[in-house]
Amino acid sequence: MTQGRDDIEGLIALMARLPGLGPRSARRAVLHLISKRGQLMAPLAEVMADVARNARECARCGNISGQPVCAICEDPKRATGEICVIEDVADLWAMERGHAFKGRYHVLGGTLSALDAIGPETLRIPDLLTRVESEGIGEVILALNATVEGQTTAHYIAEALEPMGVSVTSLAQGVPIGGELDYLDDGTIQAALRARKAF
Amino acid sequence: MTQGRDDIEGLIALMARLPGLGPRSARRAVLHLISKRGQLMAPLAEVMADVARNARECARCGNISGQPVCAICEDPKRATGEICVIEDVADLWAMERGHAFKGRYHVLGGTLSALDAIGPETLRIPDLLTRVESEGIGEVILALNATVEGQTTAHYIAEALEPMGVSVTSLAQGVPIGGELDYLDDGTIQAALRARKAF
Ligand SMILES: [Zn+2]
Ligand SMILES: [Zn+2]
Repeated sequence: MTQGRDDIEGLIALMARLPGLGPRSARRAVLHLISKRGQLMAPLAEVMADVARNARECARCGNISGQPVCAICEDPKRATGEICVIEDVADLWAMERGHAFKGRYHVLGGTLSALDAIGPETLRIPDLLTRVESEGIGEVILALNATVEGQTTAHYIAEALEPMGVSVTSLAQGVPIGGELDYLDDGTIQAALRARKAF
Repeated sequence: MTQGRDDIEGLIALMARLPGLGPRSARRAVLHLISKRGQLMAPLAEVMADVARNARECARCGNISGQPVCAICEDPKRATGEICVIEDVADLWAMERGHAFKGRYHVLGGTLSALDAIGPETLRIPDLLTRVESEGIGEVILALNATVEGQTTAHYIAEALEPMGVSVTSLAQGVPIGGELDYLDDGTIQAALRARKAF
């Protein structure tokens, strides 16, 4: 009966599969959990099991929640006629932390990639076009990452939306608040310079 | 009913309490878990709950296992008359990965510290003295970290063991000054164990 030791090794192996944790940090995390098994490990296991059971993609926007349609899509206060298009749920959370956007979202689930055979259907782009029509959307805000893939995808979506007469905008590019020029990459500085405005 | 979203936020908050994970890496880990909720998240939650329920300190050596007495202490092949004293379970695991030591362990659970009011009783040092007598131990190997605290503790234990006529050795070669066992590769630990010398 060495069940407990096998369990601990199994737990370390599973933890080591999380992004940002290697074998060593997984061991440290597991020892920390064991030292706090009442206050931290047991509640963590329980909420993790709940989320594993209940989390699903929102049928409308692709956000992750415990309901078939997420709280943002269900919230009547957010029916502003604006949809913000983001690449993934992490970006949706980042937008929500900004507390600036009051409309609804559309999570693509990635970017177009011929190499990885990721086409418009994989990214729910047809769903986006359907929503723009059926939800009476006046503005689509493309909040895709400022990478080549993100911008290629943004251009594709903008073209697909053009015949629909909806306003298509994108997040302004420039120097982040508190950003120091010396730390910015050249592309950001170039974009900020191009978009300069009267002081 | 936004239960699911609250659960996800709760999960992120708990994950962010693990060593080496901040809020951002906790969010990334949770999204990764959700994307693999069948293959990774559900099994991880289950084994974590098992370990939270069953893990305990070995009554004899302080190792963590699922049994009142751990597999190493129960293994008759390891009754070599040698006890290896380590600071914590991470160091025990590091010793085991070296596959060089065939005796049993004694986990102190830290180092002596006047500042933090950690005295010999807190560190199971009286238990160690009892074991040396009752288990017919011929050699105690002090495998404490090569830090000031580790070496202060080693000297204290060596003095306490002196009247008992047991051989006291320490890992010597290969452990770099200021080095911690858990950071060392397996070969270094093997070499240090082979080259151990009288303390
Ligand atoms: Zn939604
Ligand atoms: Zn034991």
